[in-house]
Amino acid sequence: MSLSEIPALTEKLLAAKKAKSLSFADLETVVGRDEVWLAALFYRQASASEDEATKLLNALGLSTDLVPELTGYPLKGLGPIVPTDPLIYRFYEIIQVYGFPMKEIIHEKFGDGIMSAIDFTLDIEKVEDPKGDRVKVTLDGKFLSYKKW
Amino acid sequence: MSLSEIPALTEKLLAAKKAKSLSFADLETVVGRDEVWLAALFYRQASASEDEATKLLNALGLSTDLVPELTGYPLKGLGPIVPTDPLIYRFYEIIQVYGFPMKEIIHEKFGDGIMSAIDFTLDIEKVEDPKGDRVKVTLDGKFLSYKKW
Amino acid sequence: MSLSEIPALTEKLLAAKKAKSLSFADLETVVGRDEVWLAALFYRQASASEDEATKLLNALGLSTDLVPELTGYPLKGLGPIVPTDPLIYRFYEIIQVYGFPMKEIIHEKFGDGIMSAIDFTLDIEKVEDPKGDRVKVTLDGKFLSYKKW
Amino acid sequence: MSLSEIPALTEKLLAAKKAKSLSFADLETVVGRDEVWLAALFYRQASASEDEATKLLNALGLSTDLVPELTGYPLKGLGPIVPTDPLIYRFYEIIQVYGFPMKEIIHEKFGDGIMSAIDFTLDIEKVEDPKGDRVKVTLDGKFLSYKKW
Amino acid sequence: MSLSEIPALTEKLLAAKKAKSLSFADLETVVGRDEVWLAALFYRQASASEDEATKLLNALGLSTDLVPELTGYPLKGLGPIVPTDPLIYRFYEIIQVYGFPMKEIIHEKFGDGIMSAIDFTLDIEKVEDPKGDRVKVTLDGKFLSYKKW
Amino acid sequence: MSLSEIPALTEKLLAAKKAKSLSFADLETVVGRDEVWLAALFYRQASASEDEATKLLNALGLSTDLVPELTGYPLKGLGPIVPTDPLIYRFYEIIQVYGFPMKEIIHEKFGDGIMSAIDFTLDIEKVEDPKGDRVKVTLDGKFLSYKKW
Amino acid sequence: MSLSEIPALTEKLLAAKKAKSLSFADLETVVGRDEVWLAALFYRQASASEDEATKLLNALGLSTDLVPELTGYPLKGLGPIVPTDPLIYRFYEIIQVYGFPMKEIIHEKFGDGIMSAIDFTLDIEKVEDPKGDRVKVTLDGKFLSYKKW
Amino acid sequence: MSLSEIPALTEKLLAAKKAKSLSFADLETVVGRDEVWLAALFYRQASASEDEATKLLNALGLSTDLVPELTGYPLKGLGPIVPTDPLIYRFYEIIQVYGFPMKEIIHEKFGDGIMSAIDFTLDIEKVEDPKGDRVKVTLDGKFLSYKKW
Amino acid sequence: MSLSEIPALTEKLLAAKKAKSLSFADLETVVGRDEVWLAALFYRQASASEDEATKLLNALGLSTDLVPELTGYPLKGLGPIVPTDPLIYRFYEIIQVYGFPMKEIIHEKFGDGIMSAIDFTLDIEKVEDPKGDRVKVTLDGKFLSYKKW
Amino acid sequence: MSLSEIPALTEKLLAAKKAKSLSFADLETVVGRDEVWLAALFYRQASASEDEATKLLNALGLSTDLVPELTGYPLKGLGPIVPTDPLIYRFYEIIQVYGFPMKEIIHEKFGDGIMSAIDFTLDIEKVEDPKGDRVKVTLDGKFLSYKKW
Repeated sequence: MSLSEIPALTEKLLAAKKAKSLSFADLETVVGRDEVWLAALFYRQASASEDEATKLLNALGLSTDLVPELTGYPLKGLGPIVPTDPLIYRFYEIIQVYGFPMKEIIHEKFGDGIMSAIDFTLDIEKVEDPKGDRVKVTLDGKFLSYKKW
Repeated sequence: MSLSEIPALTEKLLAAKKAKSLSFADLETVVGRDEVWLAALFYRQASASEDEATKLLNALGLSTDLVPELTGYPLKGLGPIVPTDPLIYRFYEIIQVYGFPMKEIIHEKFGDGIMSAIDFTLDIEKVEDPKGDRVKVTLDGKFLSYKKW
Repeated sequence: MSLSEIPALTEKLLAAKKAKSLSFADLETVVGRDEVWLAALFYRQASASEDEATKLLNALGLSTDLVPELTGYPLKGLGPIVPTDPLIYRFYEIIQVYGFPMKEIIHEKFGDGIMSAIDFTLDIEKVEDPKGDRVKVTLDGKFLSYKKW
Repeated sequence: MSLSEIPALTEKLLAAKKAKSLSFADLETVVGRDEVWLAALFYRQASASEDEATKLLNALGLSTDLVPELTGYPLKGLGPIVPTDPLIYRFYEIIQVYGFPMKEIIHEKFGDGIMSAIDFTLDIEKVEDPKGDRVKVTLDGKFLSYKKW
Repeated sequence: MSLSEIPALTEKLLAAKKAKSLSFADLETVVGRDEVWLAALFYRQASASEDEATKLLNALGLSTDLVPELTGYPLKGLGPIVPTDPLIYRFYEIIQVYGFPMKEIIHEKFGDGIMSAIDFTLDIEKVEDPKGDRVKVTLDGKFLSYKKW
Repeated sequence: MSLSEIPALTEKLLAAKKAKSLSFADLETVVGRDEVWLAALFYRQASASEDEATKLLNALGLSTDLVPELTGYPLKGLGPIVPTDPLIYRFYEIIQVYGFPMKEIIHEKFGDGIMSAIDFTLDIEKVEDPKGDRVKVTLDGKFLSYKKW
Repeated sequence: MSLSEIPALTEKLLAAKKAKSLSFADLETVVGRDEVWLAALFYRQASASEDEATKLLNALGLSTDLVPELTGYPLKGLGPIVPTDPLIYRFYEIIQVYGFPMKEIIHEKFGDGIMSAIDFTLDIEKVEDPKGDRVKVTLDGKFLSYKKW
Repeated sequence: MSLSEIPALTEKLLAAKKAKSLSFADLETVVGRDEVWLAALFYRQASASEDEATKLLNALGLSTDLVPELTGYPLKGLGPIVPTDPLIYRFYEIIQVYGFPMKEIIHEKFGDGIMSAIDFTLDIEKVEDPKGDRVKVTLDGKFLSYKKW
Repeated sequence: MSLSEIPALTEKLLAAKKAKSLSFADLETVVGRDEVWLAALFYRQASASEDEATKLLNALGLSTDLVPELTGYPLKGLGPIVPTDPLIYRFYEIIQVYGFPMKEIIHEKFGDGIMSAIDFTLDIEKVEDPKGDRVKVTLDGKFLSYKKW
Repeated sequence: MSLSEIPALTEKLLAAKKAKSLSFADLETVVGRDEVWLAALFYRQASASEDEATKLLNALGLSTDLVPELTGYPLKGLGPIVPTDPLIYRFYEIIQVYGFPMKEIIHEKFGDGIMSAIDFTLDIEKVEDPKGDRVKVTLDGKFLSYKKW
């Protein structure tokens, strides 16, 4: 296995989802997990319980032989160092432009520490707007203070 | 000017803010702009109107001779290609882990396009929680469809 | 799928186009989209409607089973970080040499913002000239002002 | 001199231009060269004749002692390998997304060769539009065929 | 300030410590913090309380005017992407060689998650050994489970 | 063989271990080697004796034809230059943040030299804690003084 | 097709040439093109006319079905960013060492511009010398002046 | 001294040469060395004998106190990994495009070995041509066979 | 063929050598070439005469059909830019640490030039030592003076 | 202090050595350490005892105030990732070409482990030879076996 490839499993899951004309929002209802988390599971950036994997595979009409592939903990992190896809790049650009300012504000509000990317949720909402619909992305992570010792 | 340095102006502004014991939230009241946007202005990732620059410099007790330095449009984008600061890195990691899943969800909801990083706002909120306070970051950008021609 | 390869579909489309002796200009007439946009579709940097995909595949004598591959939204951005192909490199060089000057002029004319690469068209024209024909490339993108908040 | 810095001369020229409230379009009238070319000269990406340099310095109220600095041929190419400034990055993104398609179209129209970046002009126009003004960038370069030998 | 330099403050602190012939272990007694944490503070990778900063500066015979420089939250992360110093490189090599194995073991013991580098301590001990003294480094971080949502 | 891939053998060993529901701790009992070392052997970052390889393969129900693959000395070092997997990245971050401080402390205790990464052991322990279990990683390497000549 | 691989066609052509015991100089006679240009064609860095392709394939005893593969315009530029092969690296080193001096001399003789790499020929000659034979490489490119506008 | 800067001495020499209106060809007559070699000396990529240094400094009207700076052996190799200056880049492009073909031809003529970049001369000639003057660069290096042992 | 892979031939040769229980020292006797040179031939970093190739293949019990694969001149240079394998990395570290010092000493003894890596031999010896055996590597290359012209 | 610069101290030491017309071999006699080790000390890649530092500074006619600068343990590792200086590059090339073969031979002679770069000496000898003098570099490092645990 080369170290920076989209897993074959991902393509299988996406194809099945397309064939069944299911949206991630539909799968949210079936599996009981947020659509973003489910998309992360598709790309093997999250790991399912046996129950979640079974529900998902059933909904997609795929064999439950794939359960172990969904419950393991594969290598996380995908894509080039600087994203080339314009949609993904915009998020990278936000870090380049607003990274230092965010650090100032978070430190001012919380002290020395970080926002966890593990005890963390990410939601995406479509906000309709006559001047053009808007994408609203909410990152919500526990603040972790640097421990002193 | 070297191409990847924190501007000297930034250090001057931060020092004045510290000396005056002002928070970005205090400056928000004075200038009438969000604290994150103001922090971005400090790092010269945003540009002020003459009026905004004047209000800010007055609040910080700095000479309005600096107005032109705050109203120009300097090079944006700061820091190393992969951030080394742990607080900033977590945002980079979120893109590595959730970039492809976000692309799936945004495309499913909106079609082929991107979330603008220009017609865009970024808010940071402290959510108190007995199990540990949480950082809530809201990214809000206009959806832009790919034009066909 | 590795992350920086030319899709197999691209080679199939190019081969069919060659076998049919069709130019992109011919396809422009058939599909009703500009030749550059069509070439972008060949490389899966743009996505077609069902109707566009069908017309294109029919013109190329390919099965319409490929329609879904043309209507999806694959990862965009191709090729090495610094292009090695001399034709493509010249455009990269133009950014290295004229990037800062263009920034000056655009800011002077429009204020702080960017030219959109999404609400954007690109045309290529051959201008005959006795001293040597010229390539005329027109980039036309909506100006987007930085939002303040 | 470090190899990737904005020349000190550039900052001097820009400051003088600002102090005189001159636009590049104003300088175009004075020097008889296009505003983009003049901006390139400011960043030492183009070199002036003695006459052009003198006219420019006079217009900016700067000493003609600087003439030799404007007529020399310094190292060209500025900025990081992948631009971080959002305005400049968009042009880089256009190459990532449309580089291969442009290669297809140019080869189809002209054969094996390149668009010159030397026998080359670049114009920037503001096109007013009720739905949002547009930036129109025209690249015009001589086509050069690969010589066989 | 360039983005990857050892702070001038670090050199001042190290010089004072040398002049006073103090070890980090001596400072541990004075400040009430572990020697490694204190060394991290010297390099501005940790931030002190006012009290800790005062005690440290007094012990070093330096002016307490430096307190604010020790209580701020500067950019963390120092040094080249791949360390060149042999002592530091060995730790990098350990990640290259044992990174995947550590992932296997931690996942097996704890499930999907990470060892925190924030709620974290690091101790260094000298273990005398007739066959050659040994360096014992203990990393102790809270396990953080990936949150599902 | 490409130079940065996870060996096929690794996947075979991991699959067999999963099929047999064996933990690395179970294998530790069978082979008489620490679980971390065994995980390193799985990833071909360590090399077994014939006896160790035979015991391991028997325990996993795999053919001893694989013995030579486990006793050879393949290329060590896996994964991208900067790890993208969050679990592995945290160890990289520790070097970025604490690398210089560790150098200070080790030099103060031992003089000029390094901690060996060869005459070296690595242990991972789960420390239960009501406030959240902790990962304890112990690195233990021989100190090597720089030889003078 | 991955973006930095030697084309399969190249290996086929080289094998046929070896099997026929033909030198590039022999092929020069057959095709009527310089041996260096022919080697560039083998590596798909140049493109043949139908006639040239046919003559070459006949001489090599290969099917003329390969004609289209030799007349197309594939991506140019091969090999790693810094060459690792010692023979090729020496040419890279020459640029590192003599690049700036060459720029001085060319500018002094010609003014601001470049040597074309397109309207360009490259010859390699063996010069016998009792003190050791010498490689003589002649680069001959049209000078292109920067256009002003 | 930072590791990739143009030496201050270079700027002093170039300024003196400009002030004296001397060409490198003029200096060739004075020092008795080729103009390209002299330009390499200016950039400290070659080292002079005491006699050569003295003649050069006298011709430039500079103090012979600089002799030691011209006779030492400083670090060679200047400029970014991939040249950004268009004139220098063209030479890099020639390696990318013709590197493998040159390897084929040199190996065919000479066997396994390299062209020396040390026992090496480089000449630049202006060839007048009604269709546009040409730059002729001649690289002449001793062939070195790989020694077997 | 991808550009940075270990050749399939290498694996075939190593497997045959293992199957025959031959050491490189044994092959040295058979082929009449040093063991290091033979290992370089295995990795296709050196090229054999027909006679050497035949002797080697016979000794390994492999078909002489492989002779042409051993007598060609493939691309040299293997492995990542910074080696990850600890054994190979130590040699890289020696260059990082002792590269400049070696340059000083060689220049002092020989003047401006280099040690050839072509007219060059490399020997590896095991020196038994009660305090731990030692690896003795001898690099022996012809000194080449920079030619002046 | 920037992280990859030649220390100012190095330039001071080299200048004093030049002014005194001392060779490193002369200093070897004075200090009682090998010339290569002394050159490494000049570049602050080795650290002296107080006695060694004093002897060296006296020999160079420099103030013993510099003793602490020579006895500290600064960051080791100098120069770009891939050396650009031709003399230093040749050693890098040797690793690229002979790295894997050396690994084979060392493993065959010693088993799984490395040659230490710490318990290590490096000598450089000039071997006169009528066909051209030779540089003989001897690397001598303790073999370290991988510990199993």
